[in-house]
Amino acid sequence: MTYAAPGAFAPVPRIVSEARLMEVDRPTLVLDVDRVEEQFRALEAGLGRTRIHYAVKANPHPKIIERLVNLGSHFDAASRGEIELCLSQGADPADISFGNTIKKVSDIEFAAHVGVTLFAADAEEELEKIAAYAPGSEVYIRLIVENSQADWPLSRKFGCKEDKLMGLLAHARDLGLRPVGLSFHVGSQTRRADMWTGVLDHVAGLWHAARAEGFDLDLLNIGGGFPAFYGEAIDAPAVYAARVMALVTERFGDVPRVMAEPGRGLVAECGVIIAECLLVSHKSDLDAHRWVYLDIGRFSGLAETEGEAIRYQFITPRDHDAHGPCILAGPSCDSADVLYEKRPVSLPMSLRAGDRVIIRNAGAYTSSYSSVGFNGFPPLDVVVL
Amino acid sequence: MTYAAPGAFAPVPRIVSEARLMEVDRPTLVLDVDRVEEQFRALEAGLGRTRIHYAVKANPHPKIIERLVNLGSHFDAASRGEIELCLSQGADPADISFGNTIKKVSDIEFAAHVGVTLFAADAEEELEKIAAYAPGSEVYIRLIVENSQADWPLSRKFGCKEDKLMGLLAHARDLGLRPVGLSFHVGSQTRRADMWTGVLDHVAGLWHAARAEGFDLDLLNIGGGFPAFYGEAIDAPAVYAARVMALVTERFGDVPRVMAEPGRGLVAECGVIIAECLLVSHKSDLDAHRWVYLDIGRFSGLAETEGEAIRYQFITPRDHDAHGPCILAGPSCDSADVLYEKRPVSLPMSLRAGDRVIIRNAGAYTSSYSSVGFNGFPPLDVVVL
Repeated sequence: MTYAAPGAFAPVPRIVSEARLMEVDRPTLVLDVDRVEEQFRALEAGLGRTRIHYAVKANPHPKIIERLVNLGSHFDAASRGEIELCLSQGADPADISFGNTIKKVSDIEFAAHVGVTLFAADAEEELEKIAAYAPGSEVYIRLIVENSQADWPLSRKFGCKEDKLMGLLAHARDLGLRPVGLSFHVGSQTRRADMWTGVLDHVAGLWHAARAEGFDLDLLNIGGGFPAFYGEAIDAPAVYAARVMALVTERFGDVPRVMAEPGRGLVAECGVIIAECLLVSHKSDLDAHRWVYLDIGRFSGLAETEGEAIRYQFITPRDHDAHGPCILAGPSCDSADVLYEKRPVSLPMSLRAGDRVIIRNAGAYTSSYSSVGFNGFPPLDVVVL
Repeated sequence: MTYAAPGAFAPVPRIVSEARLMEVDRPTLVLDVDRVEEQFRALEAGLGRTRIHYAVKANPHPKIIERLVNLGSHFDAASRGEIELCLSQGADPADISFGNTIKKVSDIEFAAHVGVTLFAADAEEELEKIAAYAPGSEVYIRLIVENSQADWPLSRKFGCKEDKLMGLLAHARDLGLRPVGLSFHVGSQTRRADMWTGVLDHVAGLWHAARAEGFDLDLLNIGGGFPAFYGEAIDAPAVYAARVMALVTERFGDVPRVMAEPGRGLVAECGVIIAECLLVSHKSDLDAHRWVYLDIGRFSGLAETEGEAIRYQFITPRDHDAHGPCILAGPSCDSADVLYEKRPVSLPMSLRAGDRVIIRNAGAYTSSYSSVGFNGFPPLDVVVL
């Protein structure tokens, strides 16, 4: 199955019909945790025995964590705060990976104290911090990979290049740590499973080379990249996940422990944002460009529109009217708070101030990115159905 | 007086010496409200009878608002939240301008209800909202101006082009509003007063034309743009402000009401951020690039490093050691959380994890931009001396 174009999306999901009627006084993210469960089961069906470590940063709402704990999910945490959150919802510390390669030593110490035993690293100094504050832990080394096929590609910020891998594995061992595996990330929102091929080829070569050097690797962390539907066709989650795992098995063989870190792919489609149109205007009588301003912008929940990378879809009460292009912007007095300008958005020409605008598939990387109060606007509100 | 290069900055400001010793467990903005007062008095000295409307969005800390109320400042608010904040600290609603051109109708209604009488607009629909929810109010029309000389230039998001001006003034009048003036913005961080010349020439032409058309304009809002010191020389605030006012008077004559909206220029130099170095690494043994990771990044207070626009300066305990370039990044698992890469930063080669890094002149556009909890990191803490 492949998702069809948005107009053909029928019947209307429960979350959209609820969002159409809900009374709100500010931008509000509506979450459907039952949809998280459906998505988890679909990914699980495709991933087989691979452990799902939910990337908590995608949406740290306690109700999502609680449901995932009940479903047997594992977790990928970026900080002490995320570890505490998972524990508060009943997660077993042994099921939490501390996956940020840039950790505060006090966070490492905390993690070790509560029973987290698995850490990511990509540099000598990080290994030394882990050895000092979580001695004897398992570590996996994150690699930089080329990932230009993702919609939200990852920069060079994370991971080491391949020439450093053997040295870091040896350094970990010399420090008394247990270097058990490798990790990488194909880039967020990698829309097709086949886009993983090149990256997997590259990492598999390093995996086999490290084992040949005597490092007894038994953990492969394939990271995230699982996509959500933002208007361009994607494979259904079970199909996508199964295809990725087939590609992994072809290249790595029978790895004892495989872990995956879906975030967006698990929760994006489980949330919609209720927003409001604040203003429709033209800058000049000589200029055909229509500007539409919403009550939510880059600093209040839509951070991923930076560079127009993630392209949300919109539902309005006037969708049956004629559409036309517009530049879409947020409500703040910050000129950088423009959502889509290079590639305008198509919205009803009749749209006006006061109209409700529902932003689809906005469950990931929205509420937690929201600013505490930029321009005096409250943070994105969150309601769980 | 002109600020000298950072090394020559002596004696060490009180805020830096306090920040060196303060015990913190997370990134913390330290504010010196006495410095806000000094800066206010300096700007006031240069601006003469121009009313200062502090741009609250630059830093909405209640202690700053309280001090400015006591000093007789007026305020520029972007939202209901900012109006409520000013009122809570004792501001007179008649001293508050609702300067956002994109307002929620419920916010307009609230503002009118509490006694705010001055509103900005740049479009027909905005005027209609104001006329409906704050009937009879004073409005000023915001113009788009060219401002390529600012370090954080404003896009086309705000203001109308000049061909719409007369129509909007007439529309306001026809709606029963009082179209009293014009506003513009030269762009944030306009480092030299002489950079205002072209913009002022342009707006003055429109001002005189509107008056010739029979619009009895008596309010000129010159906006913000007042700079802070980020390493490149700027004029001292009193000198800068006096020069701007001289340029204004030359072009506009004796305008009954002139208002200015300094934000950054009032508070940036009144705050420093205490941060910590989390990791220093190299991605490859063949690659000379040094990466330095801090415990604060674009999503936790340093949003203005987007596009490397605002270039902060850093103080470390190893500043007497040899320096070298580095790529500077934040702590989150987000690849966009890189602060400076195209133009690397010079930091001590001996810098290591655990070192305190003080970020100078970080009092504006930091704490309120901070996310509520991205990656599980708490928002930027704020301490007032």
